[in-house]
Amino acid sequence: MEKMLVQINGVNKIHELLPAINDEHGGVIVQVESPMEPNVFHDMLKHSITKWKMQGKKGVWIKIPIELANLVEIAVKEGFRYHHAEPDYLMLVHWIADSESTIPANASHKVSIGAIVLNHKRELLVVQENIGRLKGSGIWKIPTGTLEEGESIFEGAIRELKEETGIDTEFMEVLAFRQIPKSFFNKSDLFFLCMMRPLSFHIQKQDLEIEAAQWMAFEEYANQPLIQKDGLSKYIRDLCLAKSEGDYQGFTPMTITSSVIDDHISSLYFLKDALHQD
Amino acid sequence: MEKMLVQINGVNKIHELLPAINDEHGGVIVQVESPMEPNVFHDMLKHSITKWKMQGKKGVWIKIPIELANLVEIAVKEGFRYHHAEPDYLMLVHWIADSESTIPANASHKVSIGAIVLNHKRELLVVQENIGRLKGSGIWKIPTGTLEEGESIFEGAIRELKEETGIDTEFMEVLAFRQIPKSFFNKSDLFFLCMMRPLSFHIQKQDLEIEAAQWMAFEEYANQPLIQKDGLSKYIRDLCLAKSEGDYQGFTPMTITSSVIDDHISSLYFLKDALHQD
Repeated sequence: MEKMLVQINGVNKIHELLPAINDEHGGVIVQVESPMEPNVFHDMLKHSITKWKMQGKKGVWIKIPIELANLVEIAVKEGFRYHHAEPDYLMLVHWIADSESTIPANASHKVSIGAIVLNHKRELLVVQENIGRLKGSGIWKIPTGTLEEGESIFEGAIRELKEETGIDTEFMEVLAFRQIPKSFFNKSDLFFLCMMRPLSFHIQKQDLEIEAAQWMAFEEYANQPLIQKDGLSKYIRDLCLAKSEGDYQGFTPMTITSSVIDDHISSLYFLKDALHQD
Repeated sequence: MEKMLVQINGVNKIHELLPAINDEHGGVIVQVESPMEPNVFHDMLKHSITKWKMQGKKGVWIKIPIELANLVEIAVKEGFRYHHAEPDYLMLVHWIADSESTIPANASHKVSIGAIVLNHKRELLVVQENIGRLKGSGIWKIPTGTLEEGESIFEGAIRELKEETGIDTEFMEVLAFRQIPKSFFNKSDLFFLCMMRPLSFHIQKQDLEIEAAQWMAFEEYANQPLIQKDGLSKYIRDLCLAKSEGDYQGFTPMTITSSVIDDHISSLYFLKDALHQD
């Protein structure tokens, strides 16, 4: 346990401090892990803030697991605001410097993928879902799913196809994407339509979400009345057709880093064939 | 205030309930707005859950403003988990039905935009930033910014350009996008590179984030050493060049609705010219 010695009117007092690690932006991160009395937490937090201010720290992050929800109120009293939450924790942040806050914005979008997988017989990999709006409708649709935290678009597409249908695939292109502002509360949705190349063909469907899965002749899929009627489904059908006939190009990913801007390894998706690089 | 009459052993008791509105998915939403004693909130919550269960409700959402952080612990005790948080509130959710939970995933991505604006003299709209890693570096870069909650990509690009440079623009295409997994904590980043057409030309820069703004000859921008060295900047330069020479096509947005899938009004971005629709 880190401690701080404070001398007031010649009297020494020792204060316990919260354990913290430095982040890359001149701030500190505290992960509260064990239960503690709210008043003990309050004292440690106050003295720790004093020390961090003396050290010139800027943003202070506190991650509180849901089991210690009784400590949230204390952090708020000391000036912390919520930054984001996941089912099992709450992340709070407090800008303690005099300079303008550069706390990054919270995530605003959920990201999901839809996958077009055509085999050499021009059959499309389709599923019927056990859950959601299309349950029991008998509609055959392309597999879809939501990205897990930290997952890339191409990883998510490969994982979802494997989970739902047992088919191994290789990622080719993003054919289109759809943005739905405020799809749940104030959060928005981004959906990426991915073209995938099948690497295996034997279907083993997942039971929880998937009622049925099969390779279906493209024309049979495209002729389903609801596919012809629905705004999005019509475009998925047309993009699939255009792609299979060879006259449509989507965005392909390339791994890049950006030392100037953020040092992150990332994927840039663009129309590769149209870019002539030196 | 809604009330519930309960008869136990012939004795009537009246319980106060939390005000709630129905959501579109068979659940209810509670917005706690006024301070109340934790034990009063606890009683109301318990009795409300009893009623919602009898009514066959599924997901129960509780939005607690940060000023009432003392109530968070109570909701957690009654089985609620965190769903998401913004600086001034925490959203909790509890699936009270026997069926499998269909609570939507939390947002996982922050979305930002970069804007390429070329005028008829083949000059690029560029800025120097007051904040962040490039502060004081003298590097001229394209304007960038983060989408606000509920904002669309094209709205965000138009707003950021107006705010930072005073220039009015029309949205044309997304030339590329970049995904950065786990860019801050476990949250990821999506950056959309947007091609914009200028509708005005007189620059009025914003003072807070922008040190300087100007129309700069494209070659001068492209020849900056850091632009030539950096992974992302090089691609932005090359995409800008390919676009200005007419041999690159990005994705353009089209408004669609999807009655089958979710009823939302949304924008589908794709390579419009390559899609021959009936």
